Order: sequence, then C-alpha cells, then structure tokens
Amino acid sequence: MHAAIRNYGQCLNTARAMKRTGAEKVFRFKLTRPAQRCKSLQSAQPPVTTIFSGIQPTGVPHLGNYLGALREWVKLQNSAASDTRLIFSVVDLHALTVPQESRQLKKWRKEAFATLIAVGLDPSRSTIFFQSAVHQHAELFWILSTVASTGYLSRMTQWKSKLQLPEDASLENSEVRTKLRLGLFSYPVLQAADILVHRATHVPVGEDQRQHLEFSRNTANSFNHIYGPIFPAPEALISPAKRVMSLKEPALKMSKSHTDERSRITLTDSPEEVRRKIKVALTDSEPGITYDPVHRPGVSNLIELLSHLEEGRSCDEIASEYKSASLRTLKGDLSDKISEVLSPIREKYYSLMADGGKLDTIAEQGAQEARANAETTMKKVRGLMGL
Amino acid sequence: MHAAIRNYGQCLNTARAMKRTGAEKVFRFKLTRPAQRCKSLQSAQPPVTTIFSGIQPTGVPHLGNYLGALREWVKLQNSAASDTRLIFSVVDLHALTVPQESRQLKKWRKEAFATLIAVGLDPSRSTIFFQSAVHQHAELFWILSTVASTGYLSRMTQWKSKLQLPEDASLENSEVRTKLRLGLFSYPVLQAADILVHRATHVPVGEDQRQHLEFSRNTANSFNHIYGPIFPAPEALISPAKRVMSLKEPALKMSKSHTDERSRITLTDSPEEVRRKIKVALTDSEPGITYDPVHRPGVSNLIELLSHLEEGRSCDEIASEYKSASLRTLKGDLSDKISEVLSPIREKYYSLMADGGKLDTIAEQGAQEARANAETTMKKVRGLMGL
Repeated sequence: MHAAIRNYGQCLNTARAMKRTGAEKVFRFKLTRPAQRCKSLQSAQPPVTTIFSGIQPTGVPHLGNYLGALREWVKLQNSAASDTRLIFSVVDLHALTVPQESRQLKKWRKEAFATLIAVGLDPSRSTIFFQSAVHQHAELFWILSTVASTGYLSRMTQWKSKLQLPEDASLENSEVRTKLRLGLFSYPVLQAADILVHRATHVPVGEDQRQHLEFSRNTANSFNHIYGPIFPAPEALISPAKRVMSLKEPALKMSKSHTDERSRITLTDSPEEVRRKIKVALTDSEPGITYDPVHRPGVSNLIELLSHLEEGRSCDEIASEYKSASLRTLKGDLSDKISEVLSPIREKYYSLMADGGKLDTIAEQGAQEARANAETTMKKVRGLMGL
Repeated sequence: MHAAIRNYGQCLNTARAMKRTGAEKVFRFKLTRPAQRCKSLQSAQPPVTTIFSGIQPTGVPHLGNYLGALREWVKLQNSAASDTRLIFSVVDLHALTVPQESRQLKKWRKEAFATLIAVGLDPSRSTIFFQSAVHQHAELFWILSTVASTGYLSRMTQWKSKLQLPEDASLENSEVRTKLRLGLFSYPVLQAADILVHRATHVPVGEDQRQHLEFSRNTANSFNHIYGPIFPAPEALISPAKRVMSLKEPALKMSKSHTDERSRITLTDSPEEVRRKIKVALTDSEPGITYDPVHRPGVSNLIELLSHLEEGRSCDEIASEYKSASLRTLKGDLSDKISEVLSPIREKYYSLMADGGKLDTIAEQGAQEARANAETTMKKVRGLMGL
C-alpha cells in the first residue's frame, strides 16, 4: 500500500479510536501532503502508530504550556489504542542551542521531567526520557546531516527569531554567520532525528512548529529515497490553537521569559498565588463582562482561560453567563477553577521532587525503553548505509 | 602550570622518548600557538599524552597513504613511551559526507581496517576501531556544534574542494547552499569531536589538515572557556612532506581516484603487479638518471619513492649512484624495493581478510576500549554542562 494511504488509514483508525473516547474534539488530523512517491516505500512494513513529542527543559511549565501541549499529550495517552506507542522526551540537547547556566539547566531538567509525570503521563504506559540519555538521537542527527540541505535550513525562521534577527536575515550576511552557532542552525535536523529515530508516525505540535515538522517529513523522504524505506513520514497532530495570553500584557502570549512573574500561572502555584496573580491581572474599566478579544483583551483572556479549563463551554456561553457579574466574581471563579485543576498536579510534583531516587528510576527506565526502540531503527539505518 | 607550557613539556618528553629510538627524524613537533589563556585551565589535570588519528574508508590504501601517514603511525606506536595512549580510527561517519554506495562502503571499511593491522598497528598496543561503533563521537559532535561558529566553518576550504567549487565560493550564493549538505559543512566539527572525545594531545596530520586541526584547537578552547577545563588543545604532528606522485601523471599526487589504476601502487599489489606498473611509469627520453623534479618529474618521482623506502638515502645520493645506469635498472631496483616492503603487509592483509571473525573480534575489542575512553570524557562534559 502506498505510504500516504497507509498513513492516512492509520490516521483514520486513530481518529476512530479517539472518537470512541471523545478525543476527536481535541486533535484535527492533517495530512500536510502525500509522502513522496518512492518505489521502495511500497514494500515497507506498515509502521506501528507511534506518537512522539518533546518539551524543552525551561523549568516548571506554565498554564499556557499545559493547556496547549501537556494536557493534550495526557489525553492522547489516555485515549490511544493499546498498540499505539507513546514517547515523550525532555529535549535537553536542544536546550544547548542557546547559552545555558549549567546549574540552572540541571535544575530545569529535573523540574520539567517531574512535571511530565505530575500532569498525568504514566511511565508504565508512555516512554518518558531525557534526550541526552539516548545516544541514538545524536547518532541519527549526524547521519541526517549528511542528507539535509543547508539551503533549506537557511530558510527556516527559528534561528532568526532566537537570535532576534529579522525574518529576512540571511547567511549572506557575515555578521549573521559570526553570531550563528552551528547547533542553532542545525536544530531542525536534531528535531528530525528525535522524531525519526523512534519511527514516529504522529507528532503533536503547535502551529508554530509546522515548518519544522515539514522539514522532518522532507528529511525522512530524502533518506528513504537514497537508502531505502526506513522512516514513516510523520504527520502533524495540530491541536486547536489555545490562546493563553499574558496576565499583565494580554497582547502577548503567556511566556516563561516575561520579567514579571505575575504575568503567568506556573503549574506549581499555590491557590493563594493563583488568586493573587489573577486578582492583579490587567483588565479594563468598562462595566460588565463581554467577550471581545480585540477591544477587551484582558477580560477576554480570563474568559478564554475559563473556557479552556471547563472544556465544552464556549467563551460566548461564559460571557453570557457572567454578563451582569463583577470582574471580581469572574476572577474568583477562575482562580478556584485553576486551583482545582492544578492542585493534584502540584501535590504530585512536590512528592516526586522530594524523592529524587524515584525520579531517577523512572528516568532510567524510560531511557532504557527509548534506547531499545531507537536502537531498532539505528540497526536498520546502519545496515542500509553499509556501516 | 599553564596549559601551553604543560603541553610543550609533554612535547619535549615525547620528543626525547622518540630520540632514543630514532623517531625524531620523522616528526617535527610544532606548537601552532599557545593555548588560550583561561584561568580555569590552570587547575586542569595534566592530560595523558594521547595520539589520535583517523583514516577514511576508501578501500586498500596506496603507497602514498602508506609513506605519508600509515608508516608514520606505526613508527609512533613503536617508539612511544609506555604511558602514551595511541588511538587510530577508521572514520566511517566522515565517509558519509559524500555520496556512498552502501555495499562498497561496507567492503571499503573492512579493507581499511584490515590494512591498519597489516601495516603494523598492534591491537594489543593501540586502540583501533570504527568511528561509527563509538557513539560518543556523534554525541560530542552535537555538543561542539552548539559552540562552533558558522562563520568560521564557512571559511574552511574542504567543503569547497569536495563540491569542486572555487576557493572563494561562499554561503552568500544560494546555489552553493542548495548543493551543500549540512554534514559536509559540519565535517570539521565531527573531526574536532573525534580528537577531543579522546582528549588527544597530539594528532599526526598532513599539511593539508592543518586548518582542520586549528579549528579543533579553537573549538577546544571555546568549550573550555565556557564550561571549564576538559580538553587539552591538540598539537599537530606534521611529518616531513612526502611527495608521492602519480606514476602516469607525475604532476599530480598519487591518488585513489585517478581513473588509470596503473597510476598508483596499492598496498596489496603482488610483485608482478608492482613490476608491471613501475615498468610503464611515465618518464622521459633524456639519457641517464638525474634528480630534477621540475624538468624530469617522472624520473624524479621514482627516485623519491626509492628514497622514501630506503630511509636515510637522499634523492641526490640515489641519483648520483644511478647516474650512468639505465632507467630499466632503476625501475627494476625500485620494483624490488617496493615488493620487499609490501610483501609482509600483503600477506598479513590477506590472512586477516580470510578470517572475518578475527577482524570482527579485533574491531569489537577496539570499540570497547574507545568507548570506555570516550565515556570518561563524556561524563565530565555532561557534568559540566548540567546534563
């Protein structure tokens, strides 16, 4: 069967499995384009449905990370067919593409790993590991480097934004080349290796990562074309966009890097901290509650947060319910709802952080599983390449 | 002690050890520049003298490879102090930077590995391994990528020559970027990883590799400066240049890639093949034998070959001895000398190739030693980086 059709079939199967559990609301399956027609692909084994995603270690994630990604991963885990593989990684090698203070990185790695489990990823169902503990990621990175075009990479936007360069910045500029480290330039190739080394078929990503996933698909196709059918072309699982904006500047996304920590809710915030941050969230002085993201971004952000947390209730429904209520009531209810969701996460997080040995055991178990899965791929890759 | 002084001291010690065995004629130690002044380096442990070099798997090497590199490696091995580490690799990951037919690569890898042992590298004294079998090379490659500047890499010449581009070719040209794969562009960083992952202090290289070794030194210094003292800045061991020219076009170097196989002597050539190739080597119709590389390049190449093989006899001495002899006599004597040197190599090579199990055992033993040495480095690297 042609790879594109096969993958499409899998998408349908996965979609059906999700429909049974209600998860079809969460993800829209998108076939970005049919896999490259390649004779050898026709004889490839149908790949096992494998979901892979990664999170950078930047400490405890905030509510935007949770609603946009982590909660979706947990739903995928809990609704997946029993033969679906689920693989989630703290991608600490990626973190090195920007300068890191090593003590902080060490702390952030641990915090990110504990959070993955605290939000509900289950190490007995999902493979959860540190990228740096699975050497096959770096090995495949080198191998994919030998097929990746520097022209394609130079058109990617992420290295430009990380260096705060304009979108039309180019390698033609020698100052740009002096600033640009090879690791940041090569980042999409390591990301492709992360996905392909596990023969992932589906990758939950945000809309902003679509360009990178397209690069991974392109790299998989290039490799398959030269060496033979190894890699399924991974499909993006795009979750409906979640607008979670800064509590202090609602024109910006909620972000880890904002200097004012009251601009974000961290997953380990206590009910008191949540209440305090929501209380001083920037709104406006118009009377009543209405949902109007353009003219009332602050109030609308609070409504959207409530809508994301109480899935099934639309922003308009919420606004209509609160239309005669005070902002104080809305903020109080939102604080309660956030804390209701965060409390079990926070408790589990602190219990894990207090027992470092347990975290190490879970991480080592995950690394072993990931190494075994990745080594299966690498054996095939080395064999096809004559290594 | 300052790193540069310490390294210089080691050089002197190694030089003294070599003097005792006569090897000081072979290598001139060159301190290309003092190691970067870095406070943290002062507290580093003095590194063990470690010699590393690698050979690309392009099948059985020719006489030029032997005289220019392999014979020097064997001399280094046989004259090194007992606490000097010697590490030699068939760098098969590097071979992937240009398109490879996988069956041929597989064959060439085996041939290159067998040759290393056939020429006299001793697996019980030197660590001999396939680069692809030691995953730490690729891991350190990624890590060094995060400190390597694309500006520096874009000025390297090798990617331009491999793509048959002019020396002033630049990433500013989008056609160049389209042609250039990331692996070829990143090659010097993988080479730096090869050297640094074994904490090599000395690297025997040809003059043409000096630029790459300087890049490795620069990368070591950058890393040490950011993270702390891990890597000794490797010193080049430049052997006196050996001009070994094509037997058919003596203006060109003897090369694996020349279409006419009579242009080169392969280390496994039988005495009959050697005699046949030397007999038809291009010379000239001038009477008598003189050493004049500019006007009589063919004859002079034969004299130089004889001089390289009978170390201690200069080209002028040889020319003077043969001045009234016929070319036929010179060619006959050279053929005999070549076969005398090659016979034990050829015999050992074929005996190794006939016993694949033995080669596999040697390669696995070498890989285990190399992995253990490289893992010692990587543990320190990961620790310093917070991984």
